[in-house]
Amino acid sequence: MILSLDHINGLDAVAFTETFAGIYEHSPWVAERAAAFRPFTSLTALAAALAGVVAAADDAAKLALLRAHPDLAGRAAVRGELTDASRQEQTSAGLDSLTPAEMARFTESNDRYRQRFGFPFILAVKHWGKAQILAAFDGRLGNTAAVEMATALAEVDKIAFSRLLDRVIPAPTGRLTTHALDTARGRPAAGLPLELVRIGNDGESVVRQAITNADGRLDQPLLVGPEMAVGLWRLTFSTGDYFLASGQMLTAPAFLDLVPIRFAIANPEQHYHVPLLLSPWSYSTYRGS
Amino acid sequence: MILSLDHINGLDAVAFTETFAGIYEHSPWVAERAAAFRPFTSLTALAAALAGVVAAADDAAKLALLRAHPDLAGRAAVRGELTDASRQEQTSAGLDSLTPAEMARFTESNDRYRQRFGFPFILAVKHWGKAQILAAFDGRLGNTAAVEMATALAEVDKIAFSRLLDRVIPAPTGRLTTHALDTARGRPAAGLPLELVRIGNDGESVVRQAITNADGRLDQPLLVGPEMAVGLWRLTFSTGDYFLASGQMLTAPAFLDLVPIRFAIANPEQHYHVPLLLSPWSYSTYRGS
Amino acid sequence: MILSLDHINGLDAVAFTETFAGIYEHSPWVAERAAAFRPFTSLTALAAALAGVVAAADDAAKLALLRAHPDLAGRAAVRGELTDASRQEQTSAGLDSLTPAEMARFTESNDRYRQRFGFPFILAVKHWGKAQILAAFDGRLGNTAAVEMATALAEVDKIAFSRLLDRVIPAPTGRLTTHALDTARGRPAAGLPLELVRIGNDGESVVRQAITNADGRLDQPLLVGPEMAVGLWRLTFSTGDYFLASGQMLTAPAFLDLVPIRFAIANPEQHYHVPLLLSPWSYSTYRGS
Amino acid sequence: MILSLDHINGLDAVAFTETFAGIYEHSPWVAERAAAFRPFTSLTALAAALAGVVAAADDAAKLALLRAHPDLAGRAAVRGELTDASRQEQTSAGLDSLTPAEMARFTESNDRYRQRFGFPFILAVKHWGKAQILAAFDGRLGNTAAVEMATALAEVDKIAFSRLLDRVIPAPTGRLTTHALDTARGRPAAGLPLELVRIGNDGESVVRQAITNADGRLDQPLLVGPEMAVGLWRLTFSTGDYFLASGQMLTAPAFLDLVPIRFAIANPEQHYHVPLLLSPWSYSTYRGS
Repeated sequence: MILSLDHINGLDAVAFTETFAGIYEHSPWVAERAAAFRPFTSLTALAAALAGVVAAADDAAKLALLRAHPDLAGRAAVRGELTDASRQEQTSAGLDSLTPAEMARFTESNDRYRQRFGFPFILAVKHWGKAQILAAFDGRLGNTAAVEMATALAEVDKIAFSRLLDRVIPAPTGRLTTHALDTARGRPAAGLPLELVRIGNDGESVVRQAITNADGRLDQPLLVGPEMAVGLWRLTFSTGDYFLASGQMLTAPAFLDLVPIRFAIANPEQHYHVPLLLSPWSYSTYRGS
Repeated sequence: MILSLDHINGLDAVAFTETFAGIYEHSPWVAERAAAFRPFTSLTALAAALAGVVAAADDAAKLALLRAHPDLAGRAAVRGELTDASRQEQTSAGLDSLTPAEMARFTESNDRYRQRFGFPFILAVKHWGKAQILAAFDGRLGNTAAVEMATALAEVDKIAFSRLLDRVIPAPTGRLTTHALDTARGRPAAGLPLELVRIGNDGESVVRQAITNADGRLDQPLLVGPEMAVGLWRLTFSTGDYFLASGQMLTAPAFLDLVPIRFAIANPEQHYHVPLLLSPWSYSTYRGS
Repeated sequence: MILSLDHINGLDAVAFTETFAGIYEHSPWVAERAAAFRPFTSLTALAAALAGVVAAADDAAKLALLRAHPDLAGRAAVRGELTDASRQEQTSAGLDSLTPAEMARFTESNDRYRQRFGFPFILAVKHWGKAQILAAFDGRLGNTAAVEMATALAEVDKIAFSRLLDRVIPAPTGRLTTHALDTARGRPAAGLPLELVRIGNDGESVVRQAITNADGRLDQPLLVGPEMAVGLWRLTFSTGDYFLASGQMLTAPAFLDLVPIRFAIANPEQHYHVPLLLSPWSYSTYRGS
Repeated sequence: MILSLDHINGLDAVAFTETFAGIYEHSPWVAERAAAFRPFTSLTALAAALAGVVAAADDAAKLALLRAHPDLAGRAAVRGELTDASRQEQTSAGLDSLTPAEMARFTESNDRYRQRFGFPFILAVKHWGKAQILAAFDGRLGNTAAVEMATALAEVDKIAFSRLLDRVIPAPTGRLTTHALDTARGRPAAGLPLELVRIGNDGESVVRQAITNADGRLDQPLLVGPEMAVGLWRLTFSTGDYFLASGQMLTAPAFLDLVPIRFAIANPEQHYHVPLLLSPWSYSTYRGS
C-alpha cells in the first residue's frame, strides 16, 4: 500500500517507525529518529530527514548501517535470506540469474572489496545491469577509505529514496519542460516538432507530441505532477523539419534530421528542464532549471 | 552500372557527356562543359566541376536549368513522364502515393511557388517525407527572389550529387571518427563503451562496438573508405557504465545512462568526426574535423 | 534632436518623410511610403516598416538604392561630398585616416567589387575597423550576384537601423538577463558572483555587481529599458570563487577562475539573455530567450 | 636553485630527502619514502610518488601531516614562525596584510573548522584571494568528516606540487594548442585570427598572434615545453573578423566580435588543448585532449 504524506504526518511515532523501519536496511533507528522532524510536505523532505539522521550519527553507527547490508549476489541472496526490498532490487539488476562464471566474479569482487574497506559493497542497483555493477566494483576499489565510506553512504541514501518511492505518494510539484534555441541564428527554435516517449521495461510508448511556440517553448509542461514517473524517457526533436521549414542550408541527407535525447527522471517532485541548443551541425542538452 | 573514377577519366568527351547527361535534369550541357576539367580524383571534385559549370553560366541558362525540373507530385509525375532519376527520387519521398487531399496541397503549393518565382519548386527530396516537403514550401515562399534563386540552384547541386553517388564509386578517403571528453573532470572519457548502428529503410544493424582508449578516442576509425555509406547512423555511448566505473556521483537512475547521437553521412569521401563532450548532466556533439 | 515615438506618430506625412528622408541614403521615397504604416509602437517596428518598403520595391528601385550609396573611403569621401550620416559612419571605422597604401587597397577593392556586381560595396561599418572591412570585401566578392544583392540590401537595412537609433528614442522593452547552470552537478550555479562592464570608446566602466540566487539567476535584470545601450558589454563570472565555495575539485591555479563573456547589444528594444553553462573545465554561452 | 630531473635522480637517498624535506610541511618522511621510486622522468611523476606515499600511509600519519600545517593567517603567521614556503604562499594570497576585521573572521573560521574536524584548514592559497579563502571555509564546513579529510589531503598534494615547481625543472612535454570549429556551418573555422596573452601579476603581455589554418588549427602549438608557464593566460579570438570574411549574417554591432577565453595552466608538463566551438550567437570551450 502506498501512503499519502498526510497519512504519514498523522501517524504516531511508533507507527511511523514501523512503516519506515526497512527503508534503511535492518536499521529502524533511522526512521525512529526522523519521526520528530514531521510534518513533511514532500517525499524529498522525508528522504532528507532520514538521510540527515544518518549523517548526524557517529562513525560506529554509520559503519554498522553499512554492515547491515547484504552482499550483492552474496550468500544471503543465495540462501534466500534477503529482505523483500533487497531481493527485489537485486532481481531488477538480474543478480538472481547469474552464470557460474558471473557468480564467481561477484564473489571474488565482494570479498576483495570487503577486505579492503571492512563493509560490503553497496550500490543502488535497481537501474543497473550485471556488467555495470562489476565495473562499479573496479572503480570504487580505487577510492581511499574516506572517500569510499562517503560513497557507500550516498548509495545507501539512494536505495532509501528508491524504497520510499514504493511507499509514499510524491507531492505533485514535479514537472518536465523543454526549450529549443537556434544557436546558428540566435533566436528561439520556433515551430520545432517534438515527441516524448516513455521507455519502460516492456517497450516504449509515445506520451506527447507538440510543436514549440514562438519562444521555443511549449505552452504547457510536457509532464506535471503524477505524470512524472521515475525511469527512462526520450525526447526526440524533428530538427530536419525545422531546418527545412526555416530555410537553413543543409546537406542531403541533413546531418541532424532527428535529435533524440534520452534521460532519466530520478525524483518525481523536482523540475526537470531539458533544453536543446541547436544548429544544423551541433547540439547541446543539459539538465537546466 | 557504377563506374570507377579511372574509367570516367579515360572516357572521350562525348562518352563522358553521355554518361552524365542526366545528372543535371534535361541539361547535358553541364556535363559537356565539365568534361574539360578532368581528370577528377574524387566524386566530390567531379561534383564541384559540374556545379562550377552551372555557377559560371548566365542567368538565362540558370533559369532554363531550374525550369527543366518537374513539379514535385506534379503533372509530369502523374502522367509518368518523369526521368528515371526524378521518378526514383519522388518515390523515395513517398510522392507516388499521395491522398487526394495531399495531392491538392502539392498542386496548390506548386502553383503558388511557380507564380511567385517563375520556376518550379526544387528540393533534394530523396531523404525527406511529404510533410517536410510541404513545410519547406512554406519556408521558401518567404524568401526574396534573389535568395530563392540561390536556394533552388543549391538544391539542384544536391540532387546532382545524389545522382552521382549512383553512378560513380567514391574515392576511399572518407572516415568516421569520434572522441569523448569528460567536461566535468577535464580529461578524456577513457573506457567509454560505444556502439555504431546503421539505420536503413528496412531496419537497424549494429556495425561496431568499441571502448574509448586513454585519449577518449578509438585506435581505428569507426568507418573507413567503402564502409562510409550515405544515409543515417547512430552512435550510442554507454555513459552510465562510464560514470559508474569512474566513480562520479549519480542519481538513481542516472540522468544520462545512454547517449544516442543520430546523424547522416551525406558525402562518403569526407571525414566525419562526431565527438561527445560529456558530464553527468549535460552533453554536446557537433560535426568536428 | 532625438524624438519620441509619440512625436513621430503625430507628424503629418510630409514632416515624417522629411524627418526620415536620409535614413535610406539619398532615398526619401522609403520614408514616404512607410508613413502610411503608422502608428509605430517601437523603433524596431518603424525600422521593419522602412525595410518592408524596400523589400516590396522592384529590382530597379533596389538597384538604384544600392547605387545611391558612396564608396567606402571613395571619391565622395575624399571630396567631402558625403551625407552627414555616411561621413560619421566612415569616420567611426577610421576610414577618414587611411595611409596611402590602405587607400590604394580600398580603391582597388571598390573598383573590383563595383565591376563585378554593378553597385558599390555597402557595409554597416560603424562598429568595424579597416582591416575587417577589407576582409569583408574578400568574402563578399566570392558570392553569386543573387546572394550579394541580398547581402547588400541587408547591410543597407542595418545602416538604416543604426541611423534610426540616433533619431528616435527606443521603446523601453529591452532587458539584459543571465542564468548560470552548473553542468557538472546538474543544478543552478547559485552564489556565483558576476560583474557587468560597459566597454566604451573611451574605456570601461563597471555597471553592476551581483550574485546569482538559488535558481542561478538574478532577482532583477542586469539592464532594463533606457540602460540598454547599443554597443559592447562584458559579463565576467567569478567562477573560481563559486567552485571553491561549492567544494569542487580544482587544480591550483583553477583552470577557470574568471569567465569573461564579451558581447554586443544591437537592438536596445530586445531581450538579451546571456546564460552560462559551466563546469570546472568547460563552459558555453549563447544568446538565449 | 632549481634542479634538473637528472640531478634529482642522481642524488643519494639522504640528499634527496633533504632536498624535498619541506615539500610536505614538516614531514620529511614523505620524501624519504619516495626516494625509492626513482628515477623520475617528470615532475608530475615525482609529485605522484610523493602523493602516493601519503595515500599509502595510515590514518594516524595522515592526520599528523594535516596537523603539521599552520593556520591561514593564524598564530604562527603572526609570530613569524611559518616555514619559508608557507609564508610565501600566505603572502601571495594577501594574508600578510589583513584588516583587524578580516583577521577576526579568519581566527573565528580557523577555530570553528579545527573544532569541527580536528585539524587546521588547509587550502592551496597561492592563487586565491582573501574573500575566496573565506568563502572556501564556508563550503568545506558543510562536508562530512570523511569527505573533508580527503579534501584536505588533496589540497596538501596541490601545495606540494606548487612547491615542487619552485625546485625542479619540468620535463619539456607540455604544450598548448587550440582548434576552432564553426558549428553554424559544420566545418573548421579557417582564417580565424587569435592572440595569446600572458596575464601576470604586473600586467599583460601578448605572446603570440596567429590565424587558424584550413583545419581550424595552428601549424605549431601556441606554447611548447619551457614556454608553458604556470599561471593565467588569455586566448582571444577575433570572431567578428572571421564572420565578416566568411559572409555570415550579423547584427551591427556583431553579437560576438571578440571571444576572450581566460584559463590557467597548472601543470606545465601536460597538454592543454583549448578549443572553440563557435557560431555567430554562441560558443563553447573546454579543456580538450
